[in-house]
Amino acid sequence: MNDDEKFTLDERREIAVNKLKSLGEVIIEDVSKDKVPSLSVPSRGTSNIYYDKEKRYYVLGERTGSRSLGNVKQVKKIGQMVYMANFCKDLVSRQKTATIREMYYVSEGWGVDFNTQQESNIVGEDLEVMLGMTREELGLMPEEDGASVYGDLLIGEDDLEINALKAGKSGYTISPTIDEVEFLECNVDRVIAVETMGMFHRMVQENAYKKFNCLIVGLKGQAARATRRFIKRVNTELNLPVYICNDGDPWGFHIAQVIISGSAKLAHVNHSLATPDAKFMGVTATDIINYDLPTDPLKDVDVMRLKELAKDPRYKPEFWQNEIKKMLKIGKKAEQQSFSKYGLEYVVDTYFPEKLEEFEKTE
Amino acid sequence: MNDDEKFTLDERREIAVNKLKSLGEVIIEDVSKDKVPSLSVPSRGTSNIYYDKEKRYYVLGERTGSRSLGNVKQVKKIGQMVYMANFCKDLVSRQKTATIREMYYVSEGWGVDFNTQQESNIVGEDLEVMLGMTREELGLMPEEDGASVYGDLLIGEDDLEINALKAGKSGYTISPTIDEVEFLECNVDRVIAVETMGMFHRMVQENAYKKFNCLIVGLKGQAARATRRFIKRVNTELNLPVYICNDGDPWGFHIAQVIISGSAKLAHVNHSLATPDAKFMGVTATDIINYDLPTDPLKDVDVMRLKELAKDPRYKPEFWQNEIKKMLKIGKKAEQQSFSKYGLEYVVDTYFPEKLEEFEKTE
Repeated sequence: MNDDEKFTLDERREIAVNKLKSLGEVIIEDVSKDKVPSLSVPSRGTSNIYYDKEKRYYVLGERTGSRSLGNVKQVKKIGQMVYMANFCKDLVSRQKTATIREMYYVSEGWGVDFNTQQESNIVGEDLEVMLGMTREELGLMPEEDGASVYGDLLIGEDDLEINALKAGKSGYTISPTIDEVEFLECNVDRVIAVETMGMFHRMVQENAYKKFNCLIVGLKGQAARATRRFIKRVNTELNLPVYICNDGDPWGFHIAQVIISGSAKLAHVNHSLATPDAKFMGVTATDIINYDLPTDPLKDVDVMRLKELAKDPRYKPEFWQNEIKKMLKIGKKAEQQSFSKYGLEYVVDTYFPEKLEEFEKTE
Repeated sequence: MNDDEKFTLDERREIAVNKLKSLGEVIIEDVSKDKVPSLSVPSRGTSNIYYDKEKRYYVLGERTGSRSLGNVKQVKKIGQMVYMANFCKDLVSRQKTATIREMYYVSEGWGVDFNTQQESNIVGEDLEVMLGMTREELGLMPEEDGASVYGDLLIGEDDLEINALKAGKSGYTISPTIDEVEFLECNVDRVIAVETMGMFHRMVQENAYKKFNCLIVGLKGQAARATRRFIKRVNTELNLPVYICNDGDPWGFHIAQVIISGSAKLAHVNHSLATPDAKFMGVTATDIINYDLPTDPLKDVDVMRLKELAKDPRYKPEFWQNEIKKMLKIGKKAEQQSFSKYGLEYVVDTYFPEKLEEFEKTE
């Protein structure tokens, strides 16, 4: 979806169908002109991916490659792409979705089926990048659901209205079709996303949603595409500031960073997934020291990862450089649940208020 | 929870608090009689675990061990147990819960803290088995949430009523506190549990909940304790037959089997988790042949696992023995999503109706 324009769900479906059709029309046009059909596909090689300082996330460069029916090696790939586009056109027209796994099996019936799921995923990404749409917009869904959301947000799914405060203690689950839901009413001031469901349940139990008038998002580790899309949407459409609290280790840092700045692998869709204004709240190396948290020593693999992050353009801001250096210096990491050392309520009663005050005073 | 008796949530909390108190009282009584305090703990060694043919799940035998404060090696363990019991008593009295991870960190403040999470988990299981209660009843929760549920079941969580048909496309999430929810109204005839969320979403999209008047349960792989407890409760309290549809491989078989007959490791709580009347619907080796499904060859590790299962008492029924033999013979396995070969709707339009008819005609 282009973030500059707002289309209704029906309009977006129509756009997808038209773009998918145009793929076939390009080929037909070439044939009718007695030209060997070829398609131009933006390159997704590492040399064509760069970090855009203005946008603050990874984007694709201008380089494209071409897939020609005159090239024996590329014939099968074009065939697969056309079949997949046709399958997607059918999906979107019928307002259905399929998992990428299901599509892999459906392709058994095509003359140009895939040898592996990996192969069909790549063609799916080719379609995304050629059409400038996410695969979810083309009806293709990942297997896994997204995060859990708890708080006073009224969500519209078709004719259904769901209040994420009243969907149960485990909250409303972000489904892969998150782009089809509407935000009908929002009565919160901010979003606090946490890495573990353990912390999510702690926050629900301690009434954090009331105390901070926030949405609580339980990321369940690395955020699914649907979760990233949800976070971007609440940030841009509802103007809610987003704070992320993960484990204080390189993996927790990076779960936050992918939400903030996107990933290189998905450079072609980061414009709809990255939330550059989201803030990493903690657990920072500074928190580990200031709150005297129970820690584990950094393992070799943690140290290696921290050094990698230090060189990554997304970690260039001074804040990150300092925290990475500090963590390497103390040689320790801490989990977000380690605040329980001071009692179960401490994280909600003391840590979050102190951090939020710090953030919101500087804004 | 004892399945023969029905207690209200408040009564169950009172029972838990009293049982936890009694643990301390046993020690105080010993001391007041000038005896060296000791506690009797049912043994959880493999020689004390057996498959109960009547009950159709693993149970603990009669053997117990003793933990004595006169034994230097056991002093710390008893100390940990008493601290943990006290912590749980406090949790239950305050109607709170903590994750086992949080408890591990809370124990940092005790003089007898744990070296590893593993160590604290074992003491938690000791408490379960000594008191004859699940750790959830003692306020200790795992990190992860349970399955997703979609269908016409009205659930009561404290003052909140949630219809699992109206909680969103990803359904109602079973939280670790599932024993605290009430089933207020149920308008379905059966439960169909499936291994993957891909299949769950397919069923929601194809209106399987209407077609089969069923609850759809998305297991998300190996079923969490909360999921198993939910399935047992809908089976026994609401008299709903339960059908499980997983991948057609030893791992899919066993995900179903643990729901049906429980695990050896949790022999002491299987009475509240196992659902011996639940049925494995498929994907069977027979299905792979009859439906001519796309397959993968069995790997060595699959073959090994199938041979292990063949010797497991839970797989003694003729049905299982036949299916294991047949799978070994054809040397192939199939995923539940492989029905998509015949189109996305096939699994709901053809496979499920045929299998359900077969099951329900023989009942």
